[in-house]
Amino acid sequence: MPAFSLDEYQTRIELVQARMRASGIDVLWVTSPPNMNYLSGYDAWSFYVHQGLLVGLDEPRPIWIGRKIDIPCLRHTSFLKPEQASGYGDEFLSPPAHAMDFVASVVHSKGWARSVIGVEIDAPYFTALAYERLRSSLPHCRLVDADRLVNWVRIVKSPRELEYLNQAGEITDIAMKVGIEAIAPGVRHCDVAGVVYQALISGHPEFCGDAPDYQTMPKGRRTDAPHLTWTDERYTIGEGCTLELGANRFRYHAPLSRTVYVGKAPKRLVALSEFVREGLESALSAVKPGVSCESIEAAWRRVAARAGIEKESRIGYSVGLGYPPDWGERTASLMPGDQTVLSPDMVFHLILGIWGNDQGYELSETFRVTQSGYSCFSKLPRTLFLRDR
Amino acid sequence: MPAFSLDEYQTRIELVQARMRASGIDVLWVTSPPNMNYLSGYDAWSFYVHQGLLVGLDEPRPIWIGRKIDIPCLRHTSFLKPEQASGYGDEFLSPPAHAMDFVASVVHSKGWARSVIGVEIDAPYFTALAYERLRSSLPHCRLVDADRLVNWVRIVKSPRELEYLNQAGEITDIAMKVGIEAIAPGVRHCDVAGVVYQALISGHPEFCGDAPDYQTMPKGRRTDAPHLTWTDERYTIGEGCTLELGANRFRYHAPLSRTVYVGKAPKRLVALSEFVREGLESALSAVKPGVSCESIEAAWRRVAARAGIEKESRIGYSVGLGYPPDWGERTASLMPGDQTVLSPDMVFHLILGIWGNDQGYELSETFRVTQSGYSCFSKLPRTLFLRDR
Repeated sequence: MPAFSLDEYQTRIELVQARMRASGIDVLWVTSPPNMNYLSGYDAWSFYVHQGLLVGLDEPRPIWIGRKIDIPCLRHTSFLKPEQASGYGDEFLSPPAHAMDFVASVVHSKGWARSVIGVEIDAPYFTALAYERLRSSLPHCRLVDADRLVNWVRIVKSPRELEYLNQAGEITDIAMKVGIEAIAPGVRHCDVAGVVYQALISGHPEFCGDAPDYQTMPKGRRTDAPHLTWTDERYTIGEGCTLELGANRFRYHAPLSRTVYVGKAPKRLVALSEFVREGLESALSAVKPGVSCESIEAAWRRVAARAGIEKESRIGYSVGLGYPPDWGERTASLMPGDQTVLSPDMVFHLILGIWGNDQGYELSETFRVTQSGYSCFSKLPRTLFLRDR
Repeated sequence: MPAFSLDEYQTRIELVQARMRASGIDVLWVTSPPNMNYLSGYDAWSFYVHQGLLVGLDEPRPIWIGRKIDIPCLRHTSFLKPEQASGYGDEFLSPPAHAMDFVASVVHSKGWARSVIGVEIDAPYFTALAYERLRSSLPHCRLVDADRLVNWVRIVKSPRELEYLNQAGEITDIAMKVGIEAIAPGVRHCDVAGVVYQALISGHPEFCGDAPDYQTMPKGRRTDAPHLTWTDERYTIGEGCTLELGANRFRYHAPLSRTVYVGKAPKRLVALSEFVREGLESALSAVKPGVSCESIEAAWRRVAARAGIEKESRIGYSVGLGYPPDWGERTASLMPGDQTVLSPDMVFHLILGIWGNDQGYELSETFRVTQSGYSCFSKLPRTLFLRDR
């Protein structure tokens, strides 16, 4: 039932343990939902309560800790056995009790009460209070920063992970085509969103998409903003729409952005679309093993400067396994100063969002670093799409 | 453009300031996305980065702090003006810089460097490191626990909030009917999910639904688990499916659960469905202003005991404005020990999930406390739905 073989999970655990050893960490408390999934297969929408995996340096398998009612979710999605799980009762959901008191009791019972414990100190869901409570209930442990330790292991994808990303890419293309086709004067914005979500989920005849994260698709003047969804207004002639969509297969995401214009596109927008495509292709051409993330951004920046486009924000990030609030992996970014060196089977979402003007423009590709260059997950043309009927 | 009048936001801010004053808090750092929305209207999918509102005790309006590229999102959704926003550059997205260094600089510039600052110490996006960095960069401030301070203000709904909840309830009913109708032997599980999401978003001819949070709808043996979604397997005769759906209007959620069986339902399941309905109606009958949350649960528990149903987990929670990972408000729960007293215009999701056996059963209602009792947002019958064609 888990999405990967036991061998693959075992390899991941060993890679994490090697990094723990190198950092002097005895026990790792993994709370980030994609990291929990990566190391156990656990795939449930239970992360609104405190939960995590305890990874011991010398234990072959992690211990799952969460709310007692979620143990069946573990049984259906993880290779871990219920014996490797410790569930807490609902009395730990409200003050004065706290789930970390329960986690500390498991740490004690495992004989780890005097150990160095790594925590994901800047990850969503590991709250300030969780840290405080864990620290105060384990006075003889030393809690150290292990943020993104697992994330950095995730940056290079296995063949099976790439297969899921390929499937996600196919579904994203289907959904993007459905969305573009649905846009027409008089159609409600939300009705386009509705068919897009249906396509993201129904997916392909052979494989479906999992629960979508947020999909942004502002139209009209709202296209100058990157993170808005939809309203119940109707499309009218003379406005654009940016779509940033990302289907996921077993939570592996392959995002893609395109821009659509209803009616005859202003010359300025057509010119912008051509510059942005040139910039995107220039950045992609710079991709190969051994180069740095910042050099990819620099290739874009040269074209942008020539076109007079100013863009301060990063142009991409490592992508893969994700849960809300983010399909990005929180590791390498395509931006000045990021000297992460590309290696084969890293995957990035390269997104050029030009949000400065009244009408924004977005174009993106998710690409894999190959042995000699790159390959993209999408097959869609990189043009400004026009809808006038 | 914000979903409420300026007066309504002003009232909310004043209620929060009154609680701040009572707790000796000078400045409140609000990071929870629904709380940010509640006090400013800000409605964007940008909470994968650090952001928040600084609410001063004597300032009529909060200060928005977030990533610079998200200021246009503020302009489109909030009553706050861009002058009331401070945006940080992308250099704050990666170590060694941290967004809290920027927040601290704003606190300094406002003359609050020696104040008592309340923080949402156990909210999902206020990380352990955010707390540490804020504390170390504001050495003369005292950081105190203000978790759920805003959440408790949110528990009683205004007429306009109830209007949005009514709309959300109408859309949830539409989506539930669409989902039940779509279930049939041979249909892929994901295709049911696809039409459900479309209905959640396209909504009603007069008003749409916003981006759905996770919707759980396990089928077959997976119905013994509460937080699973779907697969690409097909429905077969002789299996059930639980659906927990919640449309949202302007992020106000009205969740609803029903159970469907494909084929002739086993007697045990029919009997269980009747007991659960009796239990639900018994709990609802106990609802009125002045009674405690735990007494609602006790009314259910009496019926459950008679039926031999054991359920340790809580049976409901306050609901309303929400963003991932949770549509619950993290305040009152319908469970033993919760002595929160019901008052008019509180809204709860009362959910009876019986997950213990091979075939789980779910039945729920979202209800409002009225002057004399309760009213439900859904109009659907409370039966086990059968699909045999």
